[in-house]
Amino acid sequence: MKSYKKELWFNTKNRLEFINITHEVEDAVRQSEIKEGFCLVNAMHITSSVFINDDEGGLHKDFAQWLEQNIPHDPKLYKHNLTGETNADAHLKRQFMGREVVVAVTSGKLDFGPWEQVFYGEFDGRRKKRVLIKIIGE
Amino acid sequence: MKSYKKELWFNTKNRLEFINITHEVEDAVRQSEIKEGFCLVNAMHITSSVFINDDEGGLHKDFAQWLEQNIPHDPKLYKHNLTGETNADAHLKRQFMGREVVVAVTSGKLDFGPWEQVFYGEFDGRRKKRVLIKIIGE
Amino acid sequence: MKSYKKELWFNTKNRLEFINITHEVEDAVRQSEIKEGFCLVNAMHITSSVFINDDEGGLHKDFAQWLEQNIPHDPKLYKHNLTGETNADAHLKRQFMGREVVVAVTSGKLDFGPWEQVFYGEFDGRRKKRVLIKIIGE
Repeated sequence: MKSYKKELWFNTKNRLEFINITHEVEDAVRQSEIKEGFCLVNAMHITSSVFINDDEGGLHKDFAQWLEQNIPHDPKLYKHNLTGETNADAHLKRQFMGREVVVAVTSGKLDFGPWEQVFYGEFDGRRKKRVLIKIIGE
Repeated sequence: MKSYKKELWFNTKNRLEFINITHEVEDAVRQSEIKEGFCLVNAMHITSSVFINDDEGGLHKDFAQWLEQNIPHDPKLYKHNLTGETNADAHLKRQFMGREVVVAVTSGKLDFGPWEQVFYGEFDGRRKKRVLIKIIGE
Repeated sequence: MKSYKKELWFNTKNRLEFINITHEVEDAVRQSEIKEGFCLVNAMHITSSVFINDDEGGLHKDFAQWLEQNIPHDPKLYKHNLTGETNADAHLKRQFMGREVVVAVTSGKLDFGPWEQVFYGEFDGRRKKRVLIKIIGE
């Protein structure tokens, strides 16, 4: 069994951002030289997400709007923010969007359906944060 | 390390449907001849889900009702639908229900608790769509 | 390829509880003697979750409050409860919080960012329930 690890770094300008990282994950699979296995991609921070969905700007605005309407940022709403934080909403938004994805690797490639793209989702940005890519297989 | 791959196809009559695929996943584990490992089951489309929950019809209606009340279908609510689509809600519903499950394989079987069943969740049906089963181990 | 399995047991006093199980998962990784691989941690019951987030009591109250406001317990709201159950909300809460996490194992340790902690989330407690830890790798 082989394994391969890579970290990606982000520092978003906005509090909430979605970044397409599909090419970076594909590069990691190539570099791993693993032909059959699993590729794990996860946020290493608890106020961000990795998820698979569509690369369409209108949809990303819909995601942002749903999240803000259903899990509003307003720091006064949350007990977590009594600690001095202002990001309780980001911890909850990440639960909705998910921490990680596991993707099959088949014949040396991400085994994707027609529209699957991997995104980093940031909900409390404007500082350096990381994503982990780990691939195991043969 | 061994690996095994299988695809399942669906074409639901309704926009929203939940289909129990536990037997198909169990069959794939048997065919793989893998005794110890991981079994990944994921939707290959971004408007559907694979999830693990209870096989009880009333509960499935509760899922459908919660999803419709909290993420309504109404195409006018979403910017994604300015592209001509009508399924922005399906992209969001799939984030709530999840894209994939990873199940342990132990002694050649899905290592499940007493009530765990695997479901395909469709939120924008009435066309052909796929689920991927990939198993790695020994 | 090596594999290792362990089960954890819980019997919470309250219907809703969050329990930090990071040490138990770290112990399992050590006992497995696996240096590079994946660690799956999943609830074996369909009214509970395993998730990764922050170990801060105020935030856990925020999680509980959001879940109760958006997925209320009131048994009269759900068709599932016509079967005699009272836990339809717990099945839905677990979809929001997630069933499982997959964590990379690197150099014999959980490959975590600075604040990642693993939690068992119970939404229908007061009876014996299990979590599965399965590790594969080399």
